[in-house]
Amino acid sequence: MSSVHTFPLHLRFGDEDSYGHVNNVRYLQFLEDARVLLMSEAQPQGSFLDLVDPEHYALVGRQEIEYRAPLNFSLTPAAVDLWVTAVGGSSFELGYVVRNQVGHDGGTTCAVASTTMVLVHRGTGRPVRLSEVQRELLGSWAGPAIPFRRARGR
Amino acid sequence: MSSVHTFPLHLRFGDEDSYGHVNNVRYLQFLEDARVLLMSEAQPQGSFLDLVDPEHYALVGRQEIEYRAPLNFSLTPAAVDLWVTAVGGSSFELGYVVRNQVGHDGGTTCAVASTTMVLVHRGTGRPVRLSEVQRELLGSWAGPAIPFRRARGR
Amino acid sequence: MSSVHTFPLHLRFGDEDSYGHVNNVRYLQFLEDARVLLMSEAQPQGSFLDLVDPEHYALVGRQEIEYRAPLNFSLTPAAVDLWVTAVGGSSFELGYVVRNQVGHDGGTTCAVASTTMVLVHRGTGRPVRLSEVQRELLGSWAGPAIPFRRARGR
Amino acid sequence: MSSVHTFPLHLRFGDEDSYGHVNNVRYLQFLEDARVLLMSEAQPQGSFLDLVDPEHYALVGRQEIEYRAPLNFSLTPAAVDLWVTAVGGSSFELGYVVRNQVGHDGGTTCAVASTTMVLVHRGTGRPVRLSEVQRELLGSWAGPAIPFRRARGR
Repeated sequence: MSSVHTFPLHLRFGDEDSYGHVNNVRYLQFLEDARVLLMSEAQPQGSFLDLVDPEHYALVGRQEIEYRAPLNFSLTPAAVDLWVTAVGGSSFELGYVVRNQVGHDGGTTCAVASTTMVLVHRGTGRPVRLSEVQRELLGSWAGPAIPFRRARGR
Repeated sequence: MSSVHTFPLHLRFGDEDSYGHVNNVRYLQFLEDARVLLMSEAQPQGSFLDLVDPEHYALVGRQEIEYRAPLNFSLTPAAVDLWVTAVGGSSFELGYVVRNQVGHDGGTTCAVASTTMVLVHRGTGRPVRLSEVQRELLGSWAGPAIPFRRARGR
Repeated sequence: MSSVHTFPLHLRFGDEDSYGHVNNVRYLQFLEDARVLLMSEAQPQGSFLDLVDPEHYALVGRQEIEYRAPLNFSLTPAAVDLWVTAVGGSSFELGYVVRNQVGHDGGTTCAVASTTMVLVHRGTGRPVRLSEVQRELLGSWAGPAIPFRRARGR
Repeated sequence: MSSVHTFPLHLRFGDEDSYGHVNNVRYLQFLEDARVLLMSEAQPQGSFLDLVDPEHYALVGRQEIEYRAPLNFSLTPAAVDLWVTAVGGSSFELGYVVRNQVGHDGGTTCAVASTTMVLVHRGTGRPVRLSEVQRELLGSWAGPAIPFRRARGR
């Protein structure tokens, strides 16, 4: 069993902008929907969302994305590969590959990306520690770091 | 005269998601519109867009964003500060601060971000060198690097 | 004093689709934001939203829009004219004209539209009657019916 | 064989607004994507889009939508039923039902809607007549008028 999940990406006509390609902004929405699917996935111990205390929630702290090839609207789904690249005390990092073709390996890599999620308390907004069961579930999804090509601030 | 431009950010009701805050994805649209304004700004030598050969265009190669405080829909505009953080051979990097209040200094920093733009040839899709006049204009907008708090891949 | 309000419409680059015009879907977002501005406008007796019982809210029951000319992304704002075309027992109808140029009369009419808003109870979801003070405020915004060209179901 | 097509509607987290329901604007995007699927559907004589002269295209002339029940984000698809309600000289009308559950009959009707499409010449923007083969294909998709509850301008 692989720790990498692949979710179909159902494009919409309106994802393209006037340049005739999927707009750079929309990619982050694709990441969001893949993330929601992973966080909601049924598990023996409950989905990740089930494991989050009602007084806590996970917010997006940081995102990075590298665009590698244009993506175009198509009636056949594209794909988002998703896994966990790091687990910290109160945060974790997700890695993504956006491909223009669904299937476990096919197509062209259109973007690679990462998102840092932080678990916070609803009342205070302060970070709270990930529980052991949360860490275990995230650990089961662990995979390699995203191979960003460009160094920050070149 | 400052090299930092501040553009008003006119929020839309639909920028908020069901969490009751401006959605993380929308911030990239705010960056895009601030960028379009900067690239279109009238200059003695013509706007940056005027200086781009019709066979070339600037595409988004990479983006990074750090979310610092929630932003909420408001009838009064928020603000995007924007400047150039680096100029390379065929690319340049823009830095942004998204604040919840327009004015040259006011409000809370809701996000900091950077975008790498790459000048490419329409036909081949290959990077092409920035011209001297383009580099000069970008240089006139130069400012400090974005102080991202979190190291990548923590 | 006219009962017609004119609100600036700040377009975004992403409002255009791959046909190179503002997408038909986005027009409804422009109506929404103009409506929010009208409903929030300060009045001696409080804004319309202030006059709504916390247990009630106004939902969109029906919309109709006729597209008359393409609208294009521009750095200068377009405009939405907005007024009340009918007031019923628990509902009211708003009329809109979307023009490609701000100012009280200028530009081309890109679309005309109407929205029926229904005041409902949060708990039951059932329509509730508009109060006298709500009807008076809506009445002060009254104007002519929208001159739709095409009959329904032609 | 039924003249009604049913397409799955893959909701996105961002389709909900801060009221916690799918935003009224997004429904028109769902109609657009269902329409694109119908217009692209493979046919013995070619898809409808294949049958359109390269100098012509079909634009959205008018839309009407009646919202009947709230729709919520869900990981399982909703559905759009779609058929042709009228064919004119240079235009045709599509009827839609948006349901919160895929399958040929299931779920709650969240909205009913109609769109008038007009075939126009790219150069002049003027309406052009539908061809016989286009009319035949549209005729094969014919179904009943949309039973809008509310009369216009009540």
